[in-house]
Amino acid sequence: MIYITRRERFNAAHRLFRDDYTDAQNLEVFGKCSNPNWHGHNYHLYVTIKGEVNIETGFLINLKDLSRIINEKVIEKLDHKNINIEVDFMEGKLASSENLAISIWEELESPLLELGAHLHKVKLYESENNIVEYLGSN
Amino acid sequence: MIYITRRERFNAAHRLFRDDYTDAQNLEVFGKCSNPNWHGHNYHLYVTIKGEVNIETGFLINLKDLSRIINEKVIEKLDHKNINIEVDFMEGKLASSENLAISIWEELESPLLELGAHLHKVKLYESENNIVEYLGSN
Amino acid sequence: MIYITRRERFNAAHRLFRDDYTDAQNLEVFGKCSNPNWHGHNYHLYVTIKGEVNIETGFLINLKDLSRIINEKVIEKLDHKNINIEVDFMEGKLASSENLAISIWEELESPLLELGAHLHKVKLYESENNIVEYLGSN
Amino acid sequence: MIYITRRERFNAAHRLFRDDYTDAQNLEVFGKCSNPNWHGHNYHLYVTIKGEVNIETGFLINLKDLSRIINEKVIEKLDHKNINIEVDFMEGKLASSENLAISIWEELESPLLELGAHLHKVKLYESENNIVEYLGSN
Amino acid sequence: MIYITRRERFNAAHRLFRDDYTDAQNLEVFGKCSNPNWHGHNYHLYVTIKGEVNIETGFLINLKDLSRIINEKVIEKLDHKNINIEVDFMEGKLASSENLAISIWEELESPLLELGAHLHKVKLYESENNIVEYLGSN
Amino acid sequence: MIYITRRERFNAAHRLFRDDYTDAQNLEVFGKCSNPNWHGHNYHLYVTIKGEVNIETGFLINLKDLSRIINEKVIEKLDHKNINIEVDFMEGKLASSENLAISIWEELESPLLELGAHLHKVKLYESENNIVEYLGSN
Repeated sequence: MIYITRRERFNAAHRLFRDDYTDAQNLEVFGKCSNPNWHGHNYHLYVTIKGEVNIETGFLINLKDLSRIINEKVIEKLDHKNINIEVDFMEGKLASSENLAISIWEELESPLLELGAHLHKVKLYESENNIVEYLGSN
Repeated sequence: MIYITRRERFNAAHRLFRDDYTDAQNLEVFGKCSNPNWHGHNYHLYVTIKGEVNIETGFLINLKDLSRIINEKVIEKLDHKNINIEVDFMEGKLASSENLAISIWEELESPLLELGAHLHKVKLYESENNIVEYLGSN
Repeated sequence: MIYITRRERFNAAHRLFRDDYTDAQNLEVFGKCSNPNWHGHNYHLYVTIKGEVNIETGFLINLKDLSRIINEKVIEKLDHKNINIEVDFMEGKLASSENLAISIWEELESPLLELGAHLHKVKLYESENNIVEYLGSN
Repeated sequence: MIYITRRERFNAAHRLFRDDYTDAQNLEVFGKCSNPNWHGHNYHLYVTIKGEVNIETGFLINLKDLSRIINEKVIEKLDHKNINIEVDFMEGKLASSENLAISIWEELESPLLELGAHLHKVKLYESENNIVEYLGSN
Repeated sequence: MIYITRRERFNAAHRLFRDDYTDAQNLEVFGKCSNPNWHGHNYHLYVTIKGEVNIETGFLINLKDLSRIINEKVIEKLDHKNINIEVDFMEGKLASSENLAISIWEELESPLLELGAHLHKVKLYESENNIVEYLGSN
Repeated sequence: MIYITRRERFNAAHRLFRDDYTDAQNLEVFGKCSNPNWHGHNYHLYVTIKGEVNIETGFLINLKDLSRIINEKVIEKLDHKNINIEVDFMEGKLASSENLAISIWEELESPLLELGAHLHKVKLYESENNIVEYLGSN
């Protein structure tokens, strides 16, 4: 069993808030992240897959394929976008890094499996100080 | 002459566009940075001042004072904000990193001078790949 | 199950030595880290907690609370301090990074649990080349 | 149980290709990594061992010993070398990062065990975007 | 006057040696960098241009144009290549980082000027410890 | 004219204070940096020299020589030491980063000149947020 990780990056706007909260409640729970005029981040995404090395190629998976799938399924939908209102797989969800990491997992798991690659971890840096990791629901 | 630099960070949303352009023109000139729904960045700001070392303290300036002024004049106005619509010193300006660096210089120059510190450079990382530097109008 | 990590930093002095060793023995075992006049580091501390996402907030835990507890219980006691002689939770222990990581875990585990957060990992960078991780005694 | 990691670095040339492939096949499978004239990387290697803290020293292992063994067994053989044609432990293997990480594990496991240190993980950065991890065959 | 910098990266193999030196002389002057079987690096290239901000766009230059020119003129010729034998603009030159930085300047100066951009600095990281900067021949 | 920079690192303890100040005065001016029990840092030192490229070698200076001189004259005296009481070239000086950068310049200028290398800049990172640069007294 070996693990291979590809880093990709995207820049996006978001806001943390609930419709059913007053502004004061949103401010109390979400702090300045609830700013109605949005703020944003340079997100760094690390996607890790696991498996056996292919004896023919010496690869677990061709990193070009891994990068292509991450870009098609995740980065193109998130980069230079507003996470709350423009990203189909975040619809109806709070735009927290936790939910974003879980949703990225859900977008990547099947397409990677079709390539024979088992998703192991999604690690998302919102900043150099705040990091979320998701290893699936099992 | 010695130079001392303080790094501070802020997260903000912005959009590059002109009111007098059509959407198509904005897209052509500003690309995905013109997204009407905003996007954002983790900005890293490096402020450099220059001067002589104070023999009594061994300091060019007390870094706490430098940090406090940068935070009061710049970071608190930018952090978790929308640069286009919430930042007084960016009003009426295109929210490019170039304009942002110049405006940060203009906000900091006088307050630092009151402390006896001469502003030398404002360096702004929009991402690890895109960096702007401004050394003043002279 | 999701994991969230907060980075905090502190600068401290320390020395590796045993009272019951001669200077020659200390030098042999601990090398230049045994310098009686101390040396120091910029420590980078990554604290990871695990749990379920709160459906109401989209958070595992509010990062402000996590940061506040790490600062109150650990950073304020270590930052700009001498680890050997000023830090209550290091009293009577060798000031190695291993012991420091374990002791930081012990300081954080209960206060985090009171917030409903399960501590998963303490990761401590003594330098960019030397890193210690502790995941608890189980 | 505690984990300690040492970072070491090496610069090397390599090429991904198979003798039994045509140039066109090599290009299709390995892309520009198959360039017959070689290319190269600054590899960053993180070696993690696990175990109990020695009560006498406060160490899991003396990092000087860990660093010395990594240098003797791995870095001196790889640094400023051609991985395909000069590294004994890569002979007959495809010079992928996956195979390199596995082979580094095999070189380090026994010598570390002789020191009483259990190898836990070999993590190899080929670049800031491409990372391989190996935790052994069990 | 404002400065804008774009980072690009490339991986390449090289070797430092002179045809008119014996192997022993090459080893004495160039050390392990003279290895006849090549070695390689992940080079990080920072290209800085200077000029006035365009009032219409808020840009010194569109970073997409800057990135495109750096890629066309420099990166595509260097990435996954052997600097000594495959790069037209390094022909007949010692493949040192100094010569590489100067040659990159010479490749970029005219094409950037055609865009109205004045090249200010080429900064090349061969590793995190070794850095070369060139600001032109004036 | 070309510039070449070598990074070296050292870990040291220090304290900011004046003998002729009371403890309260030291605390007011130097804050927690005045802690009588010391604190410390991982300092990152970047030494830049300037000159012409040697046509014979393609080098401005052999980086091994540059590294050796920095280590002999500066790093060995500072690494794992107490800057206030063990470093000959800091004797009688306040142990600020400003004074340290100036003193490192003074230690390096002559030995580098004997090698034919002109010192251009000493850049010292006390942390990722605090940086001092010195370019000499002219």
